[in-house]
Amino acid sequence: MQPSEPERMFYCRNNIAEIEGYTPGEQPQNRDLIKLNTNENPYPPSPAVCDALADVDPADLRLYPNPFAEPVQKEAARVYGVETGQVLCGNGSDDLLTMAVRTFVDQGGALACFEPTYSLYPVLAGIQGAVCRHIPLDGDFDLPRIDTVLEYARDCSLFFVCRPNSPAGNVFDRERVREICEKFHGIVWIDEAYADFAGDNCLNLVAEYDNVVVSRSLSKSYSLAGLRLGVAVGRPEQISQMIKVKDSYNVDMLTQRIGAAALEDQQHMRGNAERIKATRERLSRRLVGLGWQVVPSEANFVFAAPPAGAAYTMDFLRRNDVLVRHFPGTRTGDYLRITIGSDQEIDTLLMHLERLEK
Amino acid sequence: MQPSEPERMFYCRNNIAEIEGYTPGEQPQNRDLIKLNTNENPYPPSPAVCDALADVDPADLRLYPNPFAEPVQKEAARVYGVETGQVLCGNGSDDLLTMAVRTFVDQGGALACFEPTYSLYPVLAGIQGAVCRHIPLDGDFDLPRIDTVLEYARDCSLFFVCRPNSPAGNVFDRERVREICEKFHGIVWIDEAYADFAGDNCLNLVAEYDNVVVSRSLSKSYSLAGLRLGVAVGRPEQISQMIKVKDSYNVDMLTQRIGAAALEDQQHMRGNAERIKATRERLSRRLVGLGWQVVPSEANFVFAAPPAGAAYTMDFLRRNDVLVRHFPGTRTGDYLRITIGSDQEIDTLLMHLERLEK
Repeated sequence: MQPSEPERMFYCRNNIAEIEGYTPGEQPQNRDLIKLNTNENPYPPSPAVCDALADVDPADLRLYPNPFAEPVQKEAARVYGVETGQVLCGNGSDDLLTMAVRTFVDQGGALACFEPTYSLYPVLAGIQGAVCRHIPLDGDFDLPRIDTVLEYARDCSLFFVCRPNSPAGNVFDRERVREICEKFHGIVWIDEAYADFAGDNCLNLVAEYDNVVVSRSLSKSYSLAGLRLGVAVGRPEQISQMIKVKDSYNVDMLTQRIGAAALEDQQHMRGNAERIKATRERLSRRLVGLGWQVVPSEANFVFAAPPAGAAYTMDFLRRNDVLVRHFPGTRTGDYLRITIGSDQEIDTLLMHLERLEK
Repeated sequence: MQPSEPERMFYCRNNIAEIEGYTPGEQPQNRDLIKLNTNENPYPPSPAVCDALADVDPADLRLYPNPFAEPVQKEAARVYGVETGQVLCGNGSDDLLTMAVRTFVDQGGALACFEPTYSLYPVLAGIQGAVCRHIPLDGDFDLPRIDTVLEYARDCSLFFVCRPNSPAGNVFDRERVREICEKFHGIVWIDEAYADFAGDNCLNLVAEYDNVVVSRSLSKSYSLAGLRLGVAVGRPEQISQMIKVKDSYNVDMLTQRIGAAALEDQQHMRGNAERIKATRERLSRRLVGLGWQVVPSEANFVFAAPPAGAAYTMDFLRRNDVLVRHFPGTRTGDYLRITIGSDQEIDTLLMHLERLEK
């Protein structure tokens, strides 16, 4: 029976009607802008990526790809020193985060994350019809006491820990993260999208604890945001449950070949990461010199509070064709997140900022 | 606190632990096999696909793709004669089916589909923690009475109608599908993955009913199974809810460019579809001549019961390097699903079958 119009407005679940959805950073068409707003890598991907792309026979596209993205899975296992069965490939690491929520969190359940952190986590909770427990970081965007953390997360079955964290860029102490893995009763998902720019990582916690999964992204350090490829590493018993949730052919054939080639060329990725880290240190020092309050970063961006105010400074930069990102809100509203661009892009940014401060 | 081992075995949701997951068709490495098991297109994609691939500057991969896959969205809107805001792009049409369940079906809710049909639908219900109401088709794999259909689906919020249906390949009468759209109180999702091989389609039902969404795939008729691209067409108010559920960048940059180019070349797709339809008619006639019971197909495969038995015939073909698909079960177990390959591949298949029947 055809109900009357007002009843038919929403066919969707109530939780979907109520949420706003994730807001991705601006992706402008104008390529003359200096784009320091979505943590992309300023340097091109490995020449091996170009070769892999050139080697594709378009006729091969008529066949379904390998369901497990085996070329990537095998190369990732080699790079991370784990078994192939411990690796799960995603259509971007966002696809893996989505699988995590769908595998480990019931509708009506709860997941935990820190506040502020990657704003997709609460959105994924909302889509699932689950609650997100936001655990406030301290004034330096660092971890609160572990018993406070566990108290907040007591009804959660999944805990997203972003390390280095976004948008602040700092890393939580590894021993304290280990303590969370030891004491939390659910899955601790360590989102290491930015780990290639940091001094250490948490991969070895997968060997130590059966409730730990670590995810990586090829978007940032491998300069492949446009390709959509992420990799999760965990115990085979967790990976095998997530495989049931993933789309059968979630990583396409081109991405499998290009991604495997990119992973194979560790030297290219490392070289770019080192350049970005050097630029990051230079930018951080200069911003401090200009009176900005800068959070120590181990990512490919800095999070810093400008003396002239965040919204004003962002608008000023925008008028000068430089895009940076502002996250409104009490904890983040005074800061801007600035992606580390090329040295030339950062010089242009600094030139504008010096003009602003005068 | 670290619980004891047995308690920690399953961190996942009960419904995930209990399901088996979807079994994709075999994707063998050996390219010498004649692969008639997963409904791929035997002909290469459009030359426009090759051009689009050759035009890619790998350096562009460092930037995130357009979140809505606008190049595909616009081209699909033109081809299907709808507004851009009515089009949603997916990482394969499976991604769209997943979004459908996550948007319209609660955990503890229910969705409906016919039996037999695409075996992913019940798997998606299981992942969501929802019930799948299987509505038995009649002895000819055709629709039962509409009041029976509605009675089965009375507690469902989503109804997947695969037209042409898989694995049987027949099309349900369009007026009877329209009656389901008219009378069912939830979303009717018409999965038209095979519609380019059929005599008609249900796209115009989107204009007539606000509860109808139609999805298409580029895997079959456009020879792009390896690319992962699907398109859904619906009312803007349904599309906007599904957008909240989709991953921010679910369609990668290469897929956007190649997919748009493929959609633009309608002539190439039509030409290949016509060849496949001609081969399908020839194969169907020959199988009937060999004593097979053949379901009338409007898809790129035929579903037919061999006189020598399905499992035996499949094994015999397998030993002769020809892969076809068998779906065990009371309704489907007597049949094999044979993808329409090239004329040469079908000739080889028929040569083996003639030998078998002697």
